[in-house]
Amino acid sequence: MSRLQPIEYAEASKAVRAVFDDIKQTRNVPDVNNFWKYLAHDPVGLKRTWESLKEVMAPGALDPLTKEMVYLAVSVTNGCGYCIASHGAAARKAGMTDAMFGELMGVVGMANETNRLANGYRVPIDPMFD
Amino acid sequence: MSRLQPIEYAEASKAVRAVFDDIKQTRNVPDVNNFWKYLAHDPVGLKRTWESLKEVMAPGALDPLTKEMVYLAVSVTNGCGYCIASHGAAARKAGMTDAMFGELMGVVGMANETNRLANGYRVPIDPMFD
Amino acid sequence: MSRLQPIEYAEASKAVRAVFDDIKQTRNVPDVNNFWKYLAHDPVGLKRTWESLKEVMAPGALDPLTKEMVYLAVSVTNGCGYCIASHGAAARKAGMTDAMFGELMGVVGMANETNRLANGYRVPIDPMFD
Amino acid sequence: MSRLQPIEYAEASKAVRAVFDDIKQTRNVPDVNNFWKYLAHDPVGLKRTWESLKEVMAPGALDPLTKEMVYLAVSVTNGCGYCIASHGAAARKAGMTDAMFGELMGVVGMANETNRLANGYRVPIDPMFD
Amino acid sequence: MSRLQPIEYAEASKAVRAVFDDIKQTRNVPDVNNFWKYLAHDPVGLKRTWESLKEVMAPGALDPLTKEMVYLAVSVTNGCGYCIASHGAAARKAGMTDAMFGELMGVVGMANETNRLANGYRVPIDPMFD
Amino acid sequence: MSRLQPIEYAEASKAVRAVFDDIKQTRNVPDVNNFWKYLAHDPVGLKRTWESLKEVMAPGALDPLTKEMVYLAVSVTNGCGYCIASHGAAARKAGMTDAMFGELMGVVGMANETNRLANGYRVPIDPMFD
Repeated sequence: MSRLQPIEYAEASKAVRAVFDDIKQTRNVPDVNNFWKYLAHDPVGLKRTWESLKEVMAPGALDPLTKEMVYLAVSVTNGCGYCIASHGAAARKAGMTDAMFGELMGVVGMANETNRLANGYRVPIDPMFD
Repeated sequence: MSRLQPIEYAEASKAVRAVFDDIKQTRNVPDVNNFWKYLAHDPVGLKRTWESLKEVMAPGALDPLTKEMVYLAVSVTNGCGYCIASHGAAARKAGMTDAMFGELMGVVGMANETNRLANGYRVPIDPMFD
Repeated sequence: MSRLQPIEYAEASKAVRAVFDDIKQTRNVPDVNNFWKYLAHDPVGLKRTWESLKEVMAPGALDPLTKEMVYLAVSVTNGCGYCIASHGAAARKAGMTDAMFGELMGVVGMANETNRLANGYRVPIDPMFD
Repeated sequence: MSRLQPIEYAEASKAVRAVFDDIKQTRNVPDVNNFWKYLAHDPVGLKRTWESLKEVMAPGALDPLTKEMVYLAVSVTNGCGYCIASHGAAARKAGMTDAMFGELMGVVGMANETNRLANGYRVPIDPMFD
Repeated sequence: MSRLQPIEYAEASKAVRAVFDDIKQTRNVPDVNNFWKYLAHDPVGLKRTWESLKEVMAPGALDPLTKEMVYLAVSVTNGCGYCIASHGAAARKAGMTDAMFGELMGVVGMANETNRLANGYRVPIDPMFD
Repeated sequence: MSRLQPIEYAEASKAVRAVFDDIKQTRNVPDVNNFWKYLAHDPVGLKRTWESLKEVMAPGALDPLTKEMVYLAVSVTNGCGYCIASHGAAARKAGMTDAMFGELMGVVGMANETNRLANGYRVPIDPMFD
């Protein structure tokens, strides 16, 4: 009935280890972070989530820094403490400076404000946006 | 008791017109969009919101396209229909291509998914992120 | 598989009619609004929701206008279109002026903004608030 | 100005004790959990919330396990730490296995993701769903 | 700058058609619904989202009806109009009766209410849940 | 990569000190609370946020107590722990009694519940509200 415990590499199943290995290699880190150690309780979900994330966060039309900042913006909007901490660190690692973080928070704050003003005033969509 | 009506330039007070003029000049558009015409019911709030938004969205450590995409990501997360339409258009105008939009939605979707996985598994923050 | 239809008084069961009658009498209105006509598909839920709402919205330590404005503030934050329309009308009926509505939206907007700034900057609670 | 303290049975009013007694008897537990001890600061709200919850969570067309898993899914979506802990425990007690929890989180995660994709792509409702 | 248009099978690329074919076959339907026709603007995201969804919604430790009701509960909590319509229909198709829907909404409503009560009263997690 | 530290007055820049001084004078407090000490990492955002907040929270058509309770209602709905603590304290300071807090939570809870019922039943807006 109590809280789940993280699954460490040493005690992980072969399927879980394969995902952990791929995370470590892709990110060039010595160990996976807690998110993956908890998700490992569902090896199928672990694999699906990692493969989706790897695909989504790979450089493409958007660069990794932009992607990490968007991830952080969503996590801040949703108030996910773990995600703010981990993706804040990831964004810093990808090159986000203090000045960029300050401006990012400014945009996230204003978007959350004006989203509610548009709701509250019941603003109809302009024909040119439709 | 019914829905508010937009305030058009011709019927606007001097204070409202001053804000509308600044929006039109700053954005180089012939008219302001509905959001401002409804917010004009509160001239003090109109001025405050516009001046904040102008400051937040100006180019700085982050470029205008990145800012518009972050704005869109927050609006999509909150499900604000008006804001998705208007900032989707603004992001396109600032240079967002179809490929960039597709990747942006991929990141927004994954962030919303993993935010809940971190909540549900009650993942504690790793010491290195704290 | 399609959308539910509203249940009108003429076709309602005795249990549903009893709730509709109480709503009409309490609010002094000739008919109940759509919310109740749809909720009538679940007569037990209809009765529970109405009785809870009647208790919660009755004048007490807070007056009805304050309660309606708080209801509207929550609905705007959640982006519930129906609730914004119906509780906006209810707040107007309870005495909310244009000026009060403008200031209410100002507070709702700022709260939604600073909620995210507090999240994003990971601000620890001051000892005096704890 | 500081945090409220829980109201324990020994110090509770007669009205609060009556609700606590009913909770303990209905759930067959030796003491109520913190949620009720804090809500006891508002005895009317305590009674209303408990009676509503008792009615809603009773076995009916849906079994208790399904209801607890839905409760958990909503709490995870909203990011309510207390509710995730307490309803996670309740769902386990009602029979949720590790495998069921893993699949539940998978559904909650995908729903939160695709909710945003539907928002972002501004997908119109298919006629057959309307 | 305007709204995206759905991509119909006849005009779809080979990669998109392959996903559409798999959806139609898996669900035994003559055409895919709008969600997929819009997501088709991002063929990589379309494939990833469909394959994840197919895996998540397959019968397992939880039956398809329970999964669809959880999906609906999350969509209702987030206020995603499209998802409420499409997953409401899917849940009906999987066997959700009117009575089940009424109880489901009762649980979703109470969870959303008590999530906020737990927040507002700042209820600490009971040791037995931790 | 780790958590930001608060910026205390002694180490603050001239621009930050000017805002801190205005907060202390306006609120008649010996020191600013943590929110401002963290936001000080972005002096421009600090000044903008404080000036907006000061304008929004000043007495006007709505009194300061009503404004603080609305702020608290939004913060509870969003689940912002810091904001619930700080604006709960501010509302108490402005005159919110235990009874008022209890009723406020009752309204916030019911609004969050019925917002979802309106979503789930897909209730169309009554013509009189439109």
